[in-house]
Amino acid sequence: MNNVTSSSNPVGNRETILILTPLARFYQEYWDNLLKLSYPHELITLAFMIPKSREGNSATAQLQEQITKTQKSGPEKNRFASIIIERQDFDPPLASQNEGERHKMENQKARRAAMSRARNSLLFTTLGPSTSWVLWLDSDIVETPPDLIQDLAAHDKAIIVPNCFQRYTDKYKQPAERPYDFNSWQDSETAQKLGEQMGPDDILLEGYADMATYRTLMAYMVDEDGDPQQEVPLDGVGGTALLVKAEVHRDGAMFPPFPFYHLIETEGFAKMAKRLGWSATGLPNYRVYHYNE
Amino acid sequence: MNNVTSSSNPVGNRETILILTPLARFYQEYWDNLLKLSYPHELITLAFMIPKSREGNSATAQLQEQITKTQKSGPEKNRFASIIIERQDFDPPLASQNEGERHKMENQKARRAAMSRARNSLLFTTLGPSTSWVLWLDSDIVETPPDLIQDLAAHDKAIIVPNCFQRYTDKYKQPAERPYDFNSWQDSETAQKLGEQMGPDDILLEGYADMATYRTLMAYMVDEDGDPQQEVPLDGVGGTALLVKAEVHRDGAMFPPFPFYHLIETEGFAKMAKRLGWSATGLPNYRVYHYNE
Ligand SMILES: Nc1nc2c(ncn2[C@@H]2O[C@H](COP(=O)(O)OP(=O)(O)O)[C@@H](O)[C@H]2O)c(=O)[nH]1
Ligand SMILES: Nc1nc2c(ncn2[C@@H]2O[C@H](COP(=O)(O)OP(=O)(O)O)[C@@H](O)[C@H]2O)c(=O)[nH]1
Ligand SMILES: [Mn+2]
Ligand SMILES: [Mn+2]
Repeated sequence: MNNVTSSSNPVGNRETILILTPLARFYQEYWDNLLKLSYPHELITLAFMIPKSREGNSATAQLQEQITKTQKSGPEKNRFASIIIERQDFDPPLASQNEGERHKMENQKARRAAMSRARNSLLFTTLGPSTSWVLWLDSDIVETPPDLIQDLAAHDKAIIVPNCFQRYTDKYKQPAERPYDFNSWQDSETAQKLGEQMGPDDILLEGYADMATYRTLMAYMVDEDGDPQQEVPLDGVGGTALLVKAEVHRDGAMFPPFPFYHLIETEGFAKMAKRLGWSATGLPNYRVYHYNE
Repeated sequence: MNNVTSSSNPVGNRETILILTPLARFYQEYWDNLLKLSYPHELITLAFMIPKSREGNSATAQLQEQITKTQKSGPEKNRFASIIIERQDFDPPLASQNEGERHKMENQKARRAAMSRARNSLLFTTLGPSTSWVLWLDSDIVETPPDLIQDLAAHDKAIIVPNCFQRYTDKYKQPAERPYDFNSWQDSETAQKLGEQMGPDDILLEGYADMATYRTLMAYMVDEDGDPQQEVPLDGVGGTALLVKAEVHRDGAMFPPFPFYHLIETEGFAKMAKRLGWSATGLPNYRVYHYNE
C-alpha cells in the first residue's frame, strides 16, 4: 500500500523496519547487538511488550536505562527512529519461568496461547502503513551478526528464519553448540495424520518424545561447511528471530492463540500466512544464539 | 493494557474510539451523520481504506473536501482527533460494483476475501495501545442516530451489532423498509452439517436460496414495537455497523480472508473472536440504514 516496498535492497530503498520483542527478561547482549546493527538506525523502530509482573517491572527498568543512554546521550548514529514500550495486563500463565518448567509439554498450550496474545497485541498496535519489514526478535537471543537485517532481507522472502542454536559446555568441558528452536520444520505425513485423529482443540507440538511427528526439523539440517545463504522451504517457523514482510501481517497473518490446523503461535502463524498465499523459508546454516540459563 | 478501559460509560471514562471505514464510494449522508455524532469528537479518530482505482480516486477527492471543511474551517467542536486515509494497492476483484453483481454467489468468495484484506490492513495499521473501541462503519450506511456510539457501548459487550435495514418504495408506491444485512445470525445444526460435508476451502454463505442454512437471522428477529435495547446472542456478524472492544482485536481477532470454519470476513471474525473467548451480541430492534442504489 501507499507505494511501500519490501525488497532485497532495503537500505537502498530506505525501507523501514519494526523490531518487535515480547520481553519478560532483559539481556544486555541482546541490547548490545541491537546497537551494533549496521542497518541505518533512523529506519528502525523498536517496540516491546512487557508483562505487568514484578519480573516485568525490573526488565522495564533495565530497558529504560539503556534506552536513555542510547537515545539521549549516546552517539547520534546509534539512535533509533523511535522506541515504544507497552505493558501487558493479563497474567502470564505460569508463575515459574525457568527453562525446564516452560518446556513441559502440558504447560505448552497455555503458555504459547499467552505468548500469542502478547505478540498480537504488540503487532496490532505498532504496525504502520509505511512499515516495510517486521523483525521478531526474542530478548534472550544473545548473538546475532550486525548485518542480520540486510542478510535476511537480501533473500526477498515473505517470511524468513535463521537457525536458532544455543552454546553450552559439553561433557569434556569443551565449548559446543546444539539446536535450540524446534519450531522451524517441514511437515510430514505422520504429523498430518496425527492432526486428523486429534480433537479440534488439540495441538501438535514439536520436540517431545511422546509425540513423534517425523517432521523434518531445520535444527537438524545444518551442514557444518554449508552456505549460510542456503534456503529451505518451511511449513512451521519459530519466532526467536524471524523476518516478515509487513504486507504479510497487514493481510491479516497473526499468531493464533487457539489451535489453527492444530498449530498455535509462530507455527500457526506460518500456516495462516500460507492460507493467505505467502510461504516461509529457512536458512539452516545461518545461526543466531539463544541464551543458556 | 496500559490501563485502557472499554466500559458502558465511555464518555465519562474519556475512552477513545477508532472509526474504521473501507470506502469505495463516498456518501454525503454518511459524512453528515459522522459530524452529528454526539460522542466527543476529540476522542474519535477516523480512518479510511480506499482502493487505488478511478472510483477510489474520486471518493478520496470527495472525502478530502469534507475533511478540509470540518477540520480547518468548521466549528471546533465538530473536529475529530485525527483522520487517516490509506490507499489500497491490490485490485478490487470485480470490475463492476453494482449491487446485483456484488451479491452474485459465485462472486462472493473472492469479493469478501478482498474486503477482508482491506479491513485487516486498515485495522493493523491504525489500532493503538490506547484505543478503547473500534467502530466499523461502511460508507453506504446513510442513517445512524447521533447517539450511536453511546447506545451501543452502553451494553458493555465485546462485539455488538445493530440491525441493518434498507428503505425502499413498495409496489403501492409507499415508503417501506426491508432487511439488508444477512450476516448477523445464530448458527443452526443444518449449517454445521453443511460445513462438515464441504471441502476445507468451501464457504457457507447466508441469504442465498441455493444454500438453505436454516440459521436464525437477526434480520427477521425484529419486533415492530420491540425494545431497541433487546439483546440476542449471535454466532455470525455483519460489518456494516459493528462496535468492537479494541482488546478483542488486539488479542488477534481479524477478518479471515480464507475459509475459517467455512466462514470468511465479518462472519469469520465473529467465529475467531469466539475462539479467543469473546462473544457477539445483536440488537434486532436497533436499526441503521444502508443506501438503496
Ligand atoms: N510480553 C511477554 N513476553 C514474554 C512472556 N514470557 C516470555 N516472554 C518473552 O518472549 C520471548 C520468548 O519467551 P521464552 O520464555 O524465552 O520462550 P522459549 O525460549 O521459546 O522457551 C522472550 O523474549 C521472553 O522474554 C510473557 O508472558 N509476556
Ligand atoms: N477499501 C475497499 N473498500 C471497498 C471495496 N469494495 C467495497 N468497499 C467498501 O466496503 C464497504 C462494504 O462494501 P459494499 O460493496 O457496500 O458491500 P455490501 O453492501 O455488503 O454488498 C463499503 O463501505 C464500500 O464502500 C474495496 O475493494 N476496497
Ligand atoms: Mn527464549
Ligand atoms: Mn454496502
